[in-house]
Amino acid sequence: MSVTEMPDKPARAREGKALHKGQQTKAAIIDAALGLATQIGLEGLSIGALAEVTRMSKSGVFAHFGSREELQISVIREYHARFEQDVFYPAMGEPRGLPRLRAMFAHWMQRTSVEIHSGCIYISGAVEFDDRPGPVRDALASSVQTWHAAMKRAIAMAKEEGHIRATADEEQMLFEIHGLILALHYEARFLKNPDSIARANAGFENILQRYGAAPPAAKSLSKPARAAKNAKE
Amino acid sequence: MSVTEMPDKPARAREGKALHKGQQTKAAIIDAALGLATQIGLEGLSIGALAEVTRMSKSGVFAHFGSREELQISVIREYHARFEQDVFYPAMGEPRGLPRLRAMFAHWMQRTSVEIHSGCIYISGAVEFDDRPGPVRDALASSVQTWHAAMKRAIAMAKEEGHIRATADEEQMLFEIHGLILALHYEARFLKNPDSIARANAGFENILQRYGAAPPAAKSLSKPARAAKNAKE
Repeated sequence: MSVTEMPDKPARAREGKALHKGQQTKAAIIDAALGLATQIGLEGLSIGALAEVTRMSKSGVFAHFGSREELQISVIREYHARFEQDVFYPAMGEPRGLPRLRAMFAHWMQRTSVEIHSGCIYISGAVEFDDRPGPVRDALASSVQTWHAAMKRAIAMAKEEGHIRATADEEQMLFEIHGLILALHYEARFLKNPDSIARANAGFENILQRYGAAPPAAKSLSKPARAAKNAKE
Repeated sequence: MSVTEMPDKPARAREGKALHKGQQTKAAIIDAALGLATQIGLEGLSIGALAEVTRMSKSGVFAHFGSREELQISVIREYHARFEQDVFYPAMGEPRGLPRLRAMFAHWMQRTSVEIHSGCIYISGAVEFDDRPGPVRDALASSVQTWHAAMKRAIAMAKEEGHIRATADEEQMLFEIHGLILALHYEARFLKNPDSIARANAGFENILQRYGAAPPAAKSLSKPARAAKNAKE
């Protein structure tokens, strides 16, 4: 290290500290924005409302995002990160195939159950942006599709492992499972049906049974897959 | 008819005509309001926006409803009447049991398919009002529940007719079917998945097959129902 570098160091440290502080503030704003968005919707978000909640100046909030759209997209990214944290990553510890698929659904259900009270921006956002093309809609749709793709991969693995019928169609299975999650949210949150969680779980078992419990003709099809799996172990 | 009644007649006719005209105007406002609500949501409805669309004065629109809430409830009632017209009544011509249940689902699908483009206030309204107690939410929820009750009756009849397993749970079946409709709306309208209609139809067949194709043990249970039906005919 040369001496000429010395005078720079405290400045750089200050810069780093300021950057860190800036990131913390931005994270705090996004956190507040996410809380607001789940309650009043992404469309309800405004720099003004957020300034009020965070007790910052409008220009202070604005400096971190530049536009309302950028703020909405940041909220979607944060929601997605938390969704992955709660739903996707914990399931990755489960063995490939049906155990992992079951865990993904269980965590998805768990999160949806919590959101019966708080609201879900993947569901409310879809209604808000289904007829509004643009970057916010794109961010939201791509976030949902990333999750759907992960579910489809888990279904495909369950087929590879011979845990469900080899002829099962990932898209069809996911569509039916997604329907259960949407029905749970709708019926529990809007209609206040008390048995909705049990219904969604029973529906998932029904789907698995249909695709998983191979009928006599298809049973022999899944045997090689099972044998291959056993050979690997 | 006495002569003393004569002078009244034109007045009464005028009154009747005015009432008729008033009802027509109100119907026209509700029609415009329903169009607006499917696009921008029930919450987007305002006396002002409606005055603009119908080219009436705000006070003119206000005179017919008295409040924004009353306007929203009138829109929900009109939506419900049209839903019954499109979905419920045409199916009533089908024989009790599976044919009628199939027809109800087919018409529901048909309406949902049209609403992929226009929006659906049973779905968008649920998101708007799921955390807002009050008469608008109550009107919306009771309207949805009326339809769900009709579906459950159709499922119960299909059991009585021996068309589906006697052990089938109406609530569970309806929950799963409702999920398909919600997934269709979400995936076709928001994610733009092209195969959503086919997926929902395939999902319905999967549900029917699960509850309909009675397993060996349950088959004998449905025989008495079938025999009773044949005896009636």
